[in-house]
Amino acid sequence: MMDFLEEPIPGVGTYDDFNTIDWVREKSRDRDRHREITNKSKESTWALIHSVSDAFSGWLLMLLIGLLSGSLAGLIDISAHWMTDLKEGICTEGFWFNHEHCCWNSDHVTFEDRDKCPEWNSWSQLIISTDEGAFAYIVNYFMYVLWALLFAFLAVSLVKVFAPYACGSGIPEIKTILSGFIIRGYLGKWTLIIKTITLVLAVSSGLSLGKEGPLVHVACCCGNILCHCFNKYRKNEAKRREVLSAAAAAGVSVAFGAPIGGVLFSLEEVSYYFPLKTLWRSFFAALVAAFTLRSINPFGNSRLVLFYVEFHTPWHLWELVPFILLGIFGGLWGALFIRTNIAWCRKRKTTQLGKYPVVEVLVVTAITAILAFPNEYTRMSTSELISELFNDCGLLDSSKLCDYENRFNTSKGGELPDRPAGVGVYSAMWQLALTLILKIVITIFTFGMKIPSGLFIPSMAVGAIAGRLLGVGMEQLAYYHHDWAIFNSWCSQGADCITPGLYAMVGAAACLGGVTRMTVSLVVIMFELTGGLEYIVPLMAAAMTSKWVADALGREGIYDAHIRLNGYPFLEAKEEFAHKTLAMDVMKPRRNDPLLTVLTQDSMTVEDVETIISETTYSGFPVVVSRESQRLVGFVLRRDLIISIENARKKQDGVVSTSIIYFTEHSPPMPPYTPPTLKLRNILDLSPFTVTDLTPMEIVVDIFRKLGLRQCLVTHNGRLLGIITKKDVLKHIAQMANQDPDSILFN
Amino acid sequence: MMDFLEEPIPGVGTYDDFNTIDWVREKSRDRDRHREITNKSKESTWALIHSVSDAFSGWLLMLLIGLLSGSLAGLIDISAHWMTDLKEGICTEGFWFNHEHCCWNSDHVTFEDRDKCPEWNSWSQLIISTDEGAFAYIVNYFMYVLWALLFAFLAVSLVKVFAPYACGSGIPEIKTILSGFIIRGYLGKWTLIIKTITLVLAVSSGLSLGKEGPLVHVACCCGNILCHCFNKYRKNEAKRREVLSAAAAAGVSVAFGAPIGGVLFSLEEVSYYFPLKTLWRSFFAALVAAFTLRSINPFGNSRLVLFYVEFHTPWHLWELVPFILLGIFGGLWGALFIRTNIAWCRKRKTTQLGKYPVVEVLVVTAITAILAFPNEYTRMSTSELISELFNDCGLLDSSKLCDYENRFNTSKGGELPDRPAGVGVYSAMWQLALTLILKIVITIFTFGMKIPSGLFIPSMAVGAIAGRLLGVGMEQLAYYHHDWAIFNSWCSQGADCITPGLYAMVGAAACLGGVTRMTVSLVVIMFELTGGLEYIVPLMAAAMTSKWVADALGREGIYDAHIRLNGYPFLEAKEEFAHKTLAMDVMKPRRNDPLLTVLTQDSMTVEDVETIISETTYSGFPVVVSRESQRLVGFVLRRDLIISIENARKKQDGVVSTSIIYFTEHSPPMPPYTPPTLKLRNILDLSPFTVTDLTPMEIVVDIFRKLGLRQCLVTHNGRLLGIITKKDVLKHIAQMANQDPDSILFN
Repeated sequence: MMDFLEEPIPGVGTYDDFNTIDWVREKSRDRDRHREITNKSKESTWALIHSVSDAFSGWLLMLLIGLLSGSLAGLIDISAHWMTDLKEGICTEGFWFNHEHCCWNSDHVTFEDRDKCPEWNSWSQLIISTDEGAFAYIVNYFMYVLWALLFAFLAVSLVKVFAPYACGSGIPEIKTILSGFIIRGYLGKWTLIIKTITLVLAVSSGLSLGKEGPLVHVACCCGNILCHCFNKYRKNEAKRREVLSAAAAAGVSVAFGAPIGGVLFSLEEVSYYFPLKTLWRSFFAALVAAFTLRSINPFGNSRLVLFYVEFHTPWHLWELVPFILLGIFGGLWGALFIRTNIAWCRKRKTTQLGKYPVVEVLVVTAITAILAFPNEYTRMSTSELISELFNDCGLLDSSKLCDYENRFNTSKGGELPDRPAGVGVYSAMWQLALTLILKIVITIFTFGMKIPSGLFIPSMAVGAIAGRLLGVGMEQLAYYHHDWAIFNSWCSQGADCITPGLYAMVGAAACLGGVTRMTVSLVVIMFELTGGLEYIVPLMAAAMTSKWVADALGREGIYDAHIRLNGYPFLEAKEEFAHKTLAMDVMKPRRNDPLLTVLTQDSMTVEDVETIISETTYSGFPVVVSRESQRLVGFVLRRDLIISIENARKKQDGVVSTSIIYFTEHSPPMPPYTPPTLKLRNILDLSPFTVTDLTPMEIVVDIFRKLGLRQCLVTHNGRLLGIITKKDVLKHIAQMANQDPDSILFN
Repeated sequence: MMDFLEEPIPGVGTYDDFNTIDWVREKSRDRDRHREITNKSKESTWALIHSVSDAFSGWLLMLLIGLLSGSLAGLIDISAHWMTDLKEGICTEGFWFNHEHCCWNSDHVTFEDRDKCPEWNSWSQLIISTDEGAFAYIVNYFMYVLWALLFAFLAVSLVKVFAPYACGSGIPEIKTILSGFIIRGYLGKWTLIIKTITLVLAVSSGLSLGKEGPLVHVACCCGNILCHCFNKYRKNEAKRREVLSAAAAAGVSVAFGAPIGGVLFSLEEVSYYFPLKTLWRSFFAALVAAFTLRSINPFGNSRLVLFYVEFHTPWHLWELVPFILLGIFGGLWGALFIRTNIAWCRKRKTTQLGKYPVVEVLVVTAITAILAFPNEYTRMSTSELISELFNDCGLLDSSKLCDYENRFNTSKGGELPDRPAGVGVYSAMWQLALTLILKIVITIFTFGMKIPSGLFIPSMAVGAIAGRLLGVGMEQLAYYHHDWAIFNSWCSQGADCITPGLYAMVGAAACLGGVTRMTVSLVVIMFELTGGLEYIVPLMAAAMTSKWVADALGREGIYDAHIRLNGYPFLEAKEEFAHKTLAMDVMKPRRNDPLLTVLTQDSMTVEDVETIISETTYSGFPVVVSRESQRLVGFVLRRDLIISIENARKKQDGVVSTSIIYFTEHSPPMPPYTPPTLKLRNILDLSPFTVTDLTPMEIVVDIFRKLGLRQCLVTHNGRLLGIITKKDVLKHIAQMANQDPDSILFN
């Protein structure tokens, strides 16, 4: 009858892989820890310092996350830039220079041809010493495809061999992890290293994917790894998730150069439990990351992203019509993409296709590269394409998109009036239309392959192309028909009325919104890219329309769809549960099932309990006063029970199979000469959550969401009746939405 | 035994004034309503239209709130501007022109004296036809004080007679209302009208107060009043609070021209329940409000606020030291202000002082006006002062603050190097120092008087003055000692190293942060004022330091301090409850009290229940199976019980005092010839929240916060033991913080 269990047994209070944490318990544990440190701090100076350093460790951690994720983002940007250019040629001055950098240092650059300098050699120049003619073209073509295949092969092999978790965008899994799920190794150091390397390779291979989603994953890996340096965060799953929320914000911050947008993205899209303290810390981490990236200056323009823009012309209220049209396009694209991509991913999961990831990646890369090379808009990297589409044509622009007639003949100094399109613009339009079709089709097959792949950039590219096409169309319409009623009030001849770049931006926002269903964070990210409050209204109109259209065609965003595809136990916080079912309709045991498996508080032997454990797979058991009364005392977790009994059998003298286990404060009265009893009150949760059987499920769902429960007991008139676990709730929600309830795979 | 109660009795489900709502019940009711509309929508086209319009009514409401609050803000800005100038003189061209507007239309304005034109007459010019000499000065002085007193008198009288709720900033009350408290009339139409008028008067009277807090109140009034046009929001207290959260965002948006900052302010500071849907809608409302205000263009500069700035010089890492010093100053000011202001307000509440609000306002106004007139920085309106302090001296600035030596002698075209201060700057420094002292002292006495008064602007002014003083000091130090080690690396002679305007802005952020303890929203508001991501780091450093310093000297922000002073039942969501008490320590009845008053489910007569109702004041009663078993069935509210029994006695034949009340599904078996029974199951809450007596209070507090409960029942081993209400929780928290638990006044 020793009370040896006062000190914690190793393992009690931890979780198995692919299980859900209990937020309430984790937060309680953190408060206990904090209380202890605070109490001790009055005792000695050393303890006081410990207490202060404990309070500031969160900020230090944020600083480190910001620095690390900012540096990694800079590294990725620089390497991807260099390797993308490597597909076209190499710098003889030093192979480590990218194209732009190579020609910067050159003295032979003319203004018109900033891209051409003798130091930069295309592959045909190197191999057959010429850049002219069909053969040189074929050599360059061949080398382009070859490099693309090499990069893609390296990426998929590295992922396959070293870190299978490094594939995809990672956001669905991070959402699930933040909601309280455990996936060991998903945010580990191998994933970090391999994801960083393969992300560069994947982006450089020219596939239709972006680095933004994976950057969030990389930042979260940084956060998770750095947590190990701090006791406060290493041991507590809830606290660690606060850090991960902030890391996600830092990831978006460096991906788009938008710290506020990053924080709102984390709040709106990724995080589950986001207290205000985390908001402030996320903001700090996001800022540090952005400034680290800026001081690395990967693009040589003091900007955090390639596609920062500044517009100068205001927009007119009439233009909301094309903006809303772009919104509708974005919504349709989003719905189409989600459906087809999910269908394709499901096919990959269920058929032989999934067994050959390397072949799949190589085939898609080959197709992409072969189709991409002949068209300059598909050949350039997608973020360069976006940057060019967002760009407002200035006087000095040499791009084909700016090849308007009379372009150097400006009457009003500096300001560029609307102009008739020149040959370059018309040919660019055709090429862009082809690019649009290619991007739409190939992205569907790319997202979900076994390489790191984000879909922010491809989505934005699709929208930006559509927007630019519409924008140029509107511009020409306004030029040739400035006397039409819709134009004549605000658009006189020779005025600069339409900004095609703004249309591209609005289109990008619409498509991104359609796919991800982001709202505020999307608009704020775009706002931070343009810096003008004025352009929020078009962006908002497009984002709203896009969300409504896409929602009408399918409720889920791409991340939620992938979560469901993978069967993760994610309880969506945004959707209201709208059905009129009651707790008794959901709880186990169902009406015809055997009674609920319970333990009694002071009458079961070790053997009884071990039988129950071996005969059931439940992850916990309610403890009642007696089977007859069914009055609830507490709840005990299977894992804790197993560990404690094993531990007692090993260490405690005399605990045998016939020993009585008791959960009460004092041991039950025993006849003499019985084996010693085993007290397990300290692993008993004395405050299990209960609801009545008549509680509407909408309230139960709300409780599960807001408190982050793992299970909840159901009573009727004070008697224990059943249990509802998070998995039951998720299955019920799936059932109510006419989905397969068995799609929920994990606990 | 008629079951007449199937249709709702009027009054059941509403709340008394000064009571707390039950969020769970309200949200359930809304979901029921929504379900009903959705189900009906399949039946007819009309119902479908109703369902669609119901879904969009939220957006329409947001649009209306944005339009109305933007227009009111514009009206307030224009009127306050005009009336502030009225204290100095009048325009002969038309009395409705303010000073600036008057001189705009004039042909006689020279560039140096943009403010002087013959059309604008000071009072001395009108009365004694001269503007020169001591007598004219005295006349102007007298008129200035007179107008100030008149405005203040009008303001306080209007508030006193028509709408006592229109006084103060309103933010503490709005926080309390949003957390679920009912204060009837606080957001009503009279409050709106009177607050709008008196706000203009109070601002114009020259008192040390701002319009920002009251604008939030005005916007919330708009929101509340507009709710009455929509069934969905009129009848549901929880839904209405979502609208009010968005309205608060719109209020801050127009107050500072910062829509994103406004939304974050609402999220961080004001709101209690802020689902993501509300985030998106708040953003919409805030944007509409900002654009409405911009199209009204009250300041004639296409900006939403008077103190929008653009800086051009970067800051150096070394400057973080003075920025952090400003943060410390801000924290000290915040802590000092909160302590002294609360002490003064407590004195006002408890002594005779509170009985003479009009006299108090007049005395403070007179002192302010008399002290303010001789000093040009106190004479101008506070937002103009802030605008001047934020301003970076340009080539053409005629302000005294920009009176540097060699100011027109710039070597580097356009860029202004650091310069030695001229006479004007030195005299401005002295005047600003005096202004600082006056503002610090007078604001303490002003905030809390019976007129509308915000403290954002006075706090910002205090910080901006301190910042400007420090900034000019640093600038002169850098000019005279540019060879010092701390300067020589980045600040050569003749370079423009220090921007005093930036220091003013950082100081303003620090002081505002110290008083309100805002963090992210503060930085974002300031970011939206400057538009440069670069300046976020100084702002953040200052805001963080300020919050830490102020928190070390007192945990509460000014709004929370006022909430506590007024005894509102506000459950702070930000503070963690850190004590190790249990539910049994908090629940009623206490150990030596009589047992918990309960109703039984099928054995009490109408008379028994009426006796219990008249003998107790509890706002609700648990219903149990029997007194012996204490097994819980549900919870019934006192108000619903009274209304239902009254209703039954009036309408239902034969219900007399000896009638049995039953809460079960079926009526209990009765002997023949007994009076008809009364079925009250439909007012019974069948899913009351329960916790065990051993649940830690930290979890209980969390449940109350997150679910918005009003009461929670306590059980032990399945038997009902007691009850915890929100008031009990608040009293317990106060007790644990060594405060007077009886300071919680309302339910």
